[in-house]
Amino acid sequence: MDFIEKLAQASQKNKSLLCVGLDTDPALLPQNTGVFEFNKAIIDATADLVCAYKPNIAFYEAQGNPGMDALQQTRNYIPKDIPVIIDAKRGDIGNTAKAYARGLFEHYNFDAVTASPYLGFDSLEPFISYRDRGVFILCRTSNPGAADFQSLAIASDNGTKLLYEVVAEKVASWNKNVNLGLVVGATYPRELKTIREKYPEIPLLIPGVGTQGGELSETARLGADAKRVRTIINSSRQILYASKGKDFAAAARKAALDIRDKINAALDNPAR
Amino acid sequence: MDFIEKLAQASQKNKSLLCVGLDTDPALLPQNTGVFEFNKAIIDATADLVCAYKPNIAFYEAQGNPGMDALQQTRNYIPKDIPVIIDAKRGDIGNTAKAYARGLFEHYNFDAVTASPYLGFDSLEPFISYRDRGVFILCRTSNPGAADFQSLAIASDNGTKLLYEVVAEKVASWNKNVNLGLVVGATYPRELKTIREKYPEIPLLIPGVGTQGGELSETARLGADAKRVRTIINSSRQILYASKGKDFAAAARKAALDIRDKINAALDNPAR
Repeated sequence: MDFIEKLAQASQKNKSLLCVGLDTDPALLPQNTGVFEFNKAIIDATADLVCAYKPNIAFYEAQGNPGMDALQQTRNYIPKDIPVIIDAKRGDIGNTAKAYARGLFEHYNFDAVTASPYLGFDSLEPFISYRDRGVFILCRTSNPGAADFQSLAIASDNGTKLLYEVVAEKVASWNKNVNLGLVVGATYPRELKTIREKYPEIPLLIPGVGTQGGELSETARLGADAKRVRTIINSSRQILYASKGKDFAAAARKAALDIRDKINAALDNPAR
Repeated sequence: MDFIEKLAQASQKNKSLLCVGLDTDPALLPQNTGVFEFNKAIIDATADLVCAYKPNIAFYEAQGNPGMDALQQTRNYIPKDIPVIIDAKRGDIGNTAKAYARGLFEHYNFDAVTASPYLGFDSLEPFISYRDRGVFILCRTSNPGAADFQSLAIASDNGTKLLYEVVAEKVASWNKNVNLGLVVGATYPRELKTIREKYPEIPLLIPGVGTQGGELSETARLGADAKRVRTIINSSRQILYASKGKDFAAAARKAALDIRDKINAALDNPAR
């Protein structure tokens, strides 16, 4: 089954647009709790509430091989019917991009990846060519410095466009395998609205709700696709660290349930 | 000793602007030769001819933990007086960038890193804040698709500039710790000339000679700084795979010597 279909089925089965970001930082875990042990408890507590999981590879890489072991164990533990997006933001020349794609899609078997657009098409093509996997291209990111380059005005014959809009246009034009999506942060509602209105059916990965400040109901209303099968609203720290104590998994479930239901309520009641 | 000083000393001691790119692909090695064993032989054969080594992390990551072990062993084996740049092209939000910086600078102890500018200042700051390490920001890359975004014309009050020029300007303005450099590909001589003329003292990491097609003498003349201490011309495949047989190390030495000397000849005879 390809990524888009797997995402749609998980979204519908769990009635959820919520993705739990497994950005597991050993410094923030309860005493004597290992990274995989922690992730396992989080997955057990949330697997019926999410449309996807998204580990960010940085947190695992920072621990060296034990971290990468924990990542592999985590990936293997996630139920087969829930897609796993590896947040890696890769972007390198073709020869190297091939090595990254092989590592992330074949060695680790992730369902989708995030990638950076700066190097252009041939840096993305090795990922895109895995037709059954998803590729989310950074468009308008959720961080404070996003505007430094992403909102520069690009001169063209018919008026100016912002760089992130040009990125979205190019990505749409490269989407021949129908496996591309865009990353658009919840912290910039105007930009999120612009992109969703222009591309009603493209999968959007939306980080930035919760700790980063994006408002959940507004994000859901502006970002969701009509069928609610191509929208992934990510929350990491707000769920993982809902409690710092031994009850972290129960607290994570409560937080995840709350976020999932708030998203659905916002979409069921668009007028409010 | 900080990165810039270490680079200058290695460049002067070995009279070399050549960096060997350790993009070691197991599929291309002589039979029964492991990745670390191969790298060790390459380092033994070239350590007196280079100003730096630059492994691309993708080739190691693609092999999982055995690959990352080989990377760590390789890093530890490189003589202490030669800087090691990890080509990772990282770019993520601040919280995640911190994890990457910790992994690459603390866990693996690399001297410098490559990073992508697309997410803006706060995605780079965690790397920049390691004052004794170098950070090379992608500016104009060497691949065919580089122009897709990097050469878009940015509208501004005083005329248009290209995106890669704006990136260079921003990087120069962020260089308070004097530990930033730019990546500019040898395959685009005009862009290389533009950047070096405007920033005579910024360290440039220049990939793309050899297999990718950049002409070596022209690259040296256009890219080198006056003192020849802040210019890193990278060659990977042309050196690593100079011979596919058991004599690979001797062949690599010959290729590295040839490239180093050609660079120096071009700079000693600028009129030719």
